[in-house]
Amino acid sequence: MAALIHKPAIVQRLKKIARKRQHARQHVGAAPGTIFETPDASESDIRAQVCGTASVEPVAVSELGQIKQLQQQQATGSTLWIDIQGLADIQLIVAIGQHFNLHPMVIEDVINVGQRPKADIHDDDYVVVLMREPCGGPPFDSEQLAIVFGPDFVLTFQERHGDIFDPVRKRMLEGSRRLRESGAAYLGYTLIDAVIDGYFPILERYGDLTEAMEQRAIEDPAPDMINEIHLLKRELLEMRRALWSQREAINVLLRDDTALIPDALKIYLRDCADHSFQLLDLVESYREVAQGLVDLHLSSVSNRMNEIMKVLTVLATIFIPMTFIAGLYGMNFDASSPWNMPELKWRFGYLYCLGLMALSTIAMLIYFRRKGLIGK
Amino acid sequence: MAALIHKPAIVQRLKKIARKRQHARQHVGAAPGTIFETPDASESDIRAQVCGTASVEPVAVSELGQIKQLQQQQATGSTLWIDIQGLADIQLIVAIGQHFNLHPMVIEDVINVGQRPKADIHDDDYVVVLMREPCGGPPFDSEQLAIVFGPDFVLTFQERHGDIFDPVRKRMLEGSRRLRESGAAYLGYTLIDAVIDGYFPILERYGDLTEAMEQRAIEDPAPDMINEIHLLKRELLEMRRALWSQREAINVLLRDDTALIPDALKIYLRDCADHSFQLLDLVESYREVAQGLVDLHLSSVSNRMNEIMKVLTVLATIFIPMTFIAGLYGMNFDASSPWNMPELKWRFGYLYCLGLMALSTIAMLIYFRRKGLIGK
Amino acid sequence: MAALIHKPAIVQRLKKIARKRQHARQHVGAAPGTIFETPDASESDIRAQVCGTASVEPVAVSELGQIKQLQQQQATGSTLWIDIQGLADIQLIVAIGQHFNLHPMVIEDVINVGQRPKADIHDDDYVVVLMREPCGGPPFDSEQLAIVFGPDFVLTFQERHGDIFDPVRKRMLEGSRRLRESGAAYLGYTLIDAVIDGYFPILERYGDLTEAMEQRAIEDPAPDMINEIHLLKRELLEMRRALWSQREAINVLLRDDTALIPDALKIYLRDCADHSFQLLDLVESYREVAQGLVDLHLSSVSNRMNEIMKVLTVLATIFIPMTFIAGLYGMNFDASSPWNMPELKWRFGYLYCLGLMALSTIAMLIYFRRKGLIGK
Amino acid sequence: MAALIHKPAIVQRLKKIARKRQHARQHVGAAPGTIFETPDASESDIRAQVCGTASVEPVAVSELGQIKQLQQQQATGSTLWIDIQGLADIQLIVAIGQHFNLHPMVIEDVINVGQRPKADIHDDDYVVVLMREPCGGPPFDSEQLAIVFGPDFVLTFQERHGDIFDPVRKRMLEGSRRLRESGAAYLGYTLIDAVIDGYFPILERYGDLTEAMEQRAIEDPAPDMINEIHLLKRELLEMRRALWSQREAINVLLRDDTALIPDALKIYLRDCADHSFQLLDLVESYREVAQGLVDLHLSSVSNRMNEIMKVLTVLATIFIPMTFIAGLYGMNFDASSPWNMPELKWRFGYLYCLGLMALSTIAMLIYFRRKGLIGK
Amino acid sequence: MAALIHKPAIVQRLKKIARKRQHARQHVGAAPGTIFETPDASESDIRAQVCGTASVEPVAVSELGQIKQLQQQQATGSTLWIDIQGLADIQLIVAIGQHFNLHPMVIEDVINVGQRPKADIHDDDYVVVLMREPCGGPPFDSEQLAIVFGPDFVLTFQERHGDIFDPVRKRMLEGSRRLRESGAAYLGYTLIDAVIDGYFPILERYGDLTEAMEQRAIEDPAPDMINEIHLLKRELLEMRRALWSQREAINVLLRDDTALIPDALKIYLRDCADHSFQLLDLVESYREVAQGLVDLHLSSVSNRMNEIMKVLTVLATIFIPMTFIAGLYGMNFDASSPWNMPELKWRFGYLYCLGLMALSTIAMLIYFRRKGLIGK
Repeated sequence: MAALIHKPAIVQRLKKIARKRQHARQHVGAAPGTIFETPDASESDIRAQVCGTASVEPVAVSELGQIKQLQQQQATGSTLWIDIQGLADIQLIVAIGQHFNLHPMVIEDVINVGQRPKADIHDDDYVVVLMREPCGGPPFDSEQLAIVFGPDFVLTFQERHGDIFDPVRKRMLEGSRRLRESGAAYLGYTLIDAVIDGYFPILERYGDLTEAMEQRAIEDPAPDMINEIHLLKRELLEMRRALWSQREAINVLLRDDTALIPDALKIYLRDCADHSFQLLDLVESYREVAQGLVDLHLSSVSNRMNEIMKVLTVLATIFIPMTFIAGLYGMNFDASSPWNMPELKWRFGYLYCLGLMALSTIAMLIYFRRKGLIGK
Repeated sequence: MAALIHKPAIVQRLKKIARKRQHARQHVGAAPGTIFETPDASESDIRAQVCGTASVEPVAVSELGQIKQLQQQQATGSTLWIDIQGLADIQLIVAIGQHFNLHPMVIEDVINVGQRPKADIHDDDYVVVLMREPCGGPPFDSEQLAIVFGPDFVLTFQERHGDIFDPVRKRMLEGSRRLRESGAAYLGYTLIDAVIDGYFPILERYGDLTEAMEQRAIEDPAPDMINEIHLLKRELLEMRRALWSQREAINVLLRDDTALIPDALKIYLRDCADHSFQLLDLVESYREVAQGLVDLHLSSVSNRMNEIMKVLTVLATIFIPMTFIAGLYGMNFDASSPWNMPELKWRFGYLYCLGLMALSTIAMLIYFRRKGLIGK
Repeated sequence: MAALIHKPAIVQRLKKIARKRQHARQHVGAAPGTIFETPDASESDIRAQVCGTASVEPVAVSELGQIKQLQQQQATGSTLWIDIQGLADIQLIVAIGQHFNLHPMVIEDVINVGQRPKADIHDDDYVVVLMREPCGGPPFDSEQLAIVFGPDFVLTFQERHGDIFDPVRKRMLEGSRRLRESGAAYLGYTLIDAVIDGYFPILERYGDLTEAMEQRAIEDPAPDMINEIHLLKRELLEMRRALWSQREAINVLLRDDTALIPDALKIYLRDCADHSFQLLDLVESYREVAQGLVDLHLSSVSNRMNEIMKVLTVLATIFIPMTFIAGLYGMNFDASSPWNMPELKWRFGYLYCLGLMALSTIAMLIYFRRKGLIGK
Repeated sequence: MAALIHKPAIVQRLKKIARKRQHARQHVGAAPGTIFETPDASESDIRAQVCGTASVEPVAVSELGQIKQLQQQQATGSTLWIDIQGLADIQLIVAIGQHFNLHPMVIEDVINVGQRPKADIHDDDYVVVLMREPCGGPPFDSEQLAIVFGPDFVLTFQERHGDIFDPVRKRMLEGSRRLRESGAAYLGYTLIDAVIDGYFPILERYGDLTEAMEQRAIEDPAPDMINEIHLLKRELLEMRRALWSQREAINVLLRDDTALIPDALKIYLRDCADHSFQLLDLVESYREVAQGLVDLHLSSVSNRMNEIMKVLTVLATIFIPMTFIAGLYGMNFDASSPWNMPELKWRFGYLYCLGLMALSTIAMLIYFRRKGLIGK
Repeated sequence: MAALIHKPAIVQRLKKIARKRQHARQHVGAAPGTIFETPDASESDIRAQVCGTASVEPVAVSELGQIKQLQQQQATGSTLWIDIQGLADIQLIVAIGQHFNLHPMVIEDVINVGQRPKADIHDDDYVVVLMREPCGGPPFDSEQLAIVFGPDFVLTFQERHGDIFDPVRKRMLEGSRRLRESGAAYLGYTLIDAVIDGYFPILERYGDLTEAMEQRAIEDPAPDMINEIHLLKRELLEMRRALWSQREAINVLLRDDTALIPDALKIYLRDCADHSFQLLDLVESYREVAQGLVDLHLSSVSNRMNEIMKVLTVLATIFIPMTFIAGLYGMNFDASSPWNMPELKWRFGYLYCLGLMALSTIAMLIYFRRKGLIGK
């Protein structure tokens, strides 16, 4: 009947959700496009890789020159993928952004993490997709990920180091020609798809959690379960915020016309859109179930109260008449008057009195049984 | 006053709903279009049938060659219907898909069950409709069903073996010329219609269930009825998710232009759309009723509490004054002083005392009656 | 303080709502356009009438030939109105439908009652409007009514016999030239208008009912009033379902272009649309009020509990100290020790003891008064 | 702690809201465009006025001829404003309507009060705006007002006599050339604006009322405050219904193209639309606040219950052990056995017993303090 | 366990929200475009500044002539920014407005504060953006700010003196060429951006507040916490009203075509729109969390009640049987009969009696432990 998550842990997790939000905008009054160092930004780890007919291992990048060199060697039809993990090395990241002609506002969005997921199409130059990359859960955690792709390059900016793209890289090296040769847009799509797929196991776990809470709410409702329900609702709310905007972003890619996204890619993007809709739909059902849990909980609190009151009522009302009878025959009326408490002098007075008590108890028990207060 | 469904059974059914969801996406990081064997997939049972002027019995198919053969014999205007029940034989299913030029993403959707209902029109080549085929309820259960139709073929992929198409097949054999001769789109519509019709008896039963729960909530409210209400809400939520997307899918068929769906078919599809709207409308009303049941339940819990408290209050307050009086005359003040408890020495002291008690009881009863605590 | 409607009656009315729904679709797997005999269909009573310059009484129709004859005699500009009440004579009804070239799906919708209200425009051939004709309330009851009008005919199919069109027929006979001479579309509109007008008195009565329930919830709240509130919500929900679709149907008539509905008629239809919006708006406010009644009710239940508890608390806490004092001086300590209960031997010991009790009571009363538990 | 509005007054005001609705449609089955005498219609007071370069006082009108005369004298560019207050003189009103070529349905709407606010543009002939003119509140009261304006005339039909147009008339006479010379549409707009402005002070008062109720709910919650909250919600609901449709009506004027509304007027109408949106926005926030009051109220009811229970619990549990001890030493065991109640014979037995009681009290008080039941 | 904000302070803050609203419209019946002196308007402080290639300090303006002079000296491509703080000097403000050809309605909106945020594009002449400038919070406070920009000028009208534009002015002077040279629209955008950015720290603080309330609701729920939750909901509601309209206003700027807003600026405005969407999204989540707090609170109130009842029940039911036993042996039956209370004469009668009491206590404790009322 005890809570599974203790109050301090719940408070801790609620605080974590709140802390996430504070990254969003710290420098009020700064010029648009201004970039700030985030104090606790992860160290940058930049890897570049030309994806074409040949399978090429990614190389670590520490200066812009290396990228320029790779571009010169880049064959037509191949794609240069620069994966930036950790945003501490602002100077180099800005330099890369400017080298690929990104708009200052885009560079700002990419580095100042905490943006809302969105997709912007900058004519036929490049497409920017801001996403929330899931890092695990419950407790649900996410970080910002920006995917920028142009005619022959893909840039990815991850807030922290992560392994979400490892399966993609592995497939590429292991020989997926389609992945290597289909160009930047297809690579971009594959990365978006990987991010969205990353939500499924987390949602599965939230599904399990919700189900477990339903089970407990039904079988063994704890009085402070509402705290856990509240936490669940909060985390689902946070997830919904990420997924909602993400779905909008993918719809923008589907809807808007740009030479960067060929029609043949649209069927893949539509699949992505379906999946992000499915995720949102799942989160919405979990939210509805969590709201139903509140009703279950409040009802169980009331039922427990009823149980307590029933115990008190049954016991008290059985003993109250008996105690009264005992008090009655404890009175000190002068027995010299024949009218005063003659029962006291009866030979079987005590037994008569006990019988009276038993009778009142039986009457009470019958009454309670009829009222449904005791018995099956 | 006991619950109709016991807690373990409720938990069991809630778990079943949850398990359904886990099919959806198990292989994060896989390439798009990758197909996985579902461990517990039903064995494939494939039947092909040419529907034309002549009435032809379906033949079991175990290799692609048989299908090619049927196609060669197929007369103009006739339709080849391949019905695949159970998706275990992935190789053959993929081969069939590829033979009919289905996009790899379509083949993936068709085999990796747990997709959201949707309809996609691939130009004038083929139309894909993913649906949730109802398998019974309550408890509501459904499986994925994909209907693909092109100019002269219809493919159906059912997650498990089922008899939902038996009436259609029977009508075809028994001589419905319209069904045999109207082409693939009409056959496709007929199958979609059969699936949607399959929801009506289930919803009827949910209607009966909802009504029965209303009756119990009014006539004989059990303290743990909230669990059953929660289960009902959960199953309706699940049904709503299926029906909502299904309605959207049919609207896509109505809205989009493709040579595969002739105008004459639109009136039939509109009928389908009406029915799926009606289903959704019913589910939404049941959901609203179920939410109203929560109010009924919470009110009945409170009323029961009131009843318990009333019993305690009436009994306690009647006996409390009497017990006090008894206690009073049980005191041991030295009766030698004429001021000390002279009642004890009265000839009718005891009767006077009993009269006092009776008086207090009568006063209390009158008070309670006025307050409305007892009596009609 | 008793409920106005008893539980069995409430359950009865809830069941009636549920039963309505079961008409909708009984023959799963049947071919589209299939028509079934409804076991409890009302006997058909068919009346035909030519509305033109001359005022013609309706004639009873028992075979198609009579209708053909009327059509041959029909003057240009006049309208043939065939009013079918009761749908038992399926054969004749189907024959009439086919005679006027109705699509098989339309004939199905018209006969298989329980359809959702809708309007379909079949090019310039005919317009079909399915409605829910109100039969009275509370308890709200409705039946299906289909109005089909073409260039020179109006067909009406009523589920049961009813008098909703009597005022129209009366106006026609009494000389409304506009009604007789304005053609089929105007007659069709008049009939639609009559149906919508039929909702107003019912809603008026629901308004009165809602108001009466508000009054009772405020002045004399019964513990089981929630059941009546639930019933009210259910019936309003049912009405809303009918009215919502009906409003949509009329908007379709307003929006879509067809030669059958001349522009001059649009202002009348817009009036109809306004009224159906007004009805929906009323139902929605009643629903909101009914939801507010739930709050009123739950609050009154809690207040009653508070009242009960107050009685118990005040009485118990006044007597508890007095009973204690009585018990105290009922102890049997050996009075030979001067330290043991010297009060017992005081000359005014009893009076002192009674004074103590009075004091404790007064203290309690003052405390309760301050706390607001007793007094004004 | 008492309610500010007594139950009978609340019921009275709820009834008044309900009565308003019954005006809407009393003559089911009547032909469209039929006009009925409202039994309690206010006597008609008709004033006509030519607004042009010269400032002309309004003249009372008692027959159509007077209006015709005014029209003949009307200079180009000037506007004839006929203000009809009270709709009892149906004949003259219908005559005026027909004289200005109003459609029969418009005349019906104007006279049969209780219509939903709406705007209809009859090509370039005239514009009809039906509004709810606020008459005061709380309790909120409104009446129907129709404003019809054509190229050179404005007709206003008020349900009852009112002074809402007095400021406009005053400004006109006092020399606002713009008002006199800008034509009928500008005058029409000014009147619409006056009606919308009339809602602001009422909403201000509802704001004050809501605020006062919040204050009471926080500082001094009465047990039957829920009734007043319900009344507030009802009146706000009624106001919302009026304002919602009114906003839609003004949007119709803004959106639709008609030569009657010149572009230069659009900026004024947009201002009107802003204000009606603002009104609706205010009503919606008040409604949300009122819903929050329900939570405040239910919480205060529960808190009061807690307080009552705390008093009972603390008092009962302090005295129960003491009473037990007193009972214990009131037992009559035969003191001749040294094992039977030796305390009774102790020299300081009574003091020891009192000490025991004090001890149990102190223990209880410490326990309650720790539990937070008593003390700060 | 005490409230952090005391009731009077809560009432104070609720009143402040209400007072804000009363500014909106005080002069019912006035002509549109009429300007009124607000009694408590802040004194006007007007500063003009030419922003171009050279960096020019703002000069204080006290008459229109100064502005005209500045305009004559204004180089092509430079922007004249007139910042008006405090709206008391109506005459001068109106004169400035007229000098820049603002429509009378615009001048009215700018001076009569309390308008809903909105954006109006007056062809290619000027753009008006009405906003709510945040002044701090919690408690949230805001004032009206109007930004008007034309081809070569920007006018800002602030309700009260404020420093929200100081960072912009500083950046301009410190050398941001882009800010000085990009023209009026860019400057206008920068100011809008500054206002929107001003909301972020306030929302951050509301986030902290919400989080703190969650923590308290979980760890130390006070009985009157609902009042603080209500206050939080009210302030968030107020913020939502401002942010909702503001987002709409920025969308108008993005959507509508005007030569005043070049395409290159659209990416910046889109960033603004994103941020205002993000703000609204944050407010909406806080509102949802606050609603969840109500559930937490109500549950904690019920739990506290349960705790109180448990204490009462456990104590009462333990002592009730013991007290009964004590009463039993306090009866005065005549011991001369061997059947009357023989226990009293037993040698170990007293110990037997105490043992009975201990037994009943142990039995009760075991029962309570099993029921889960005491212990773990």
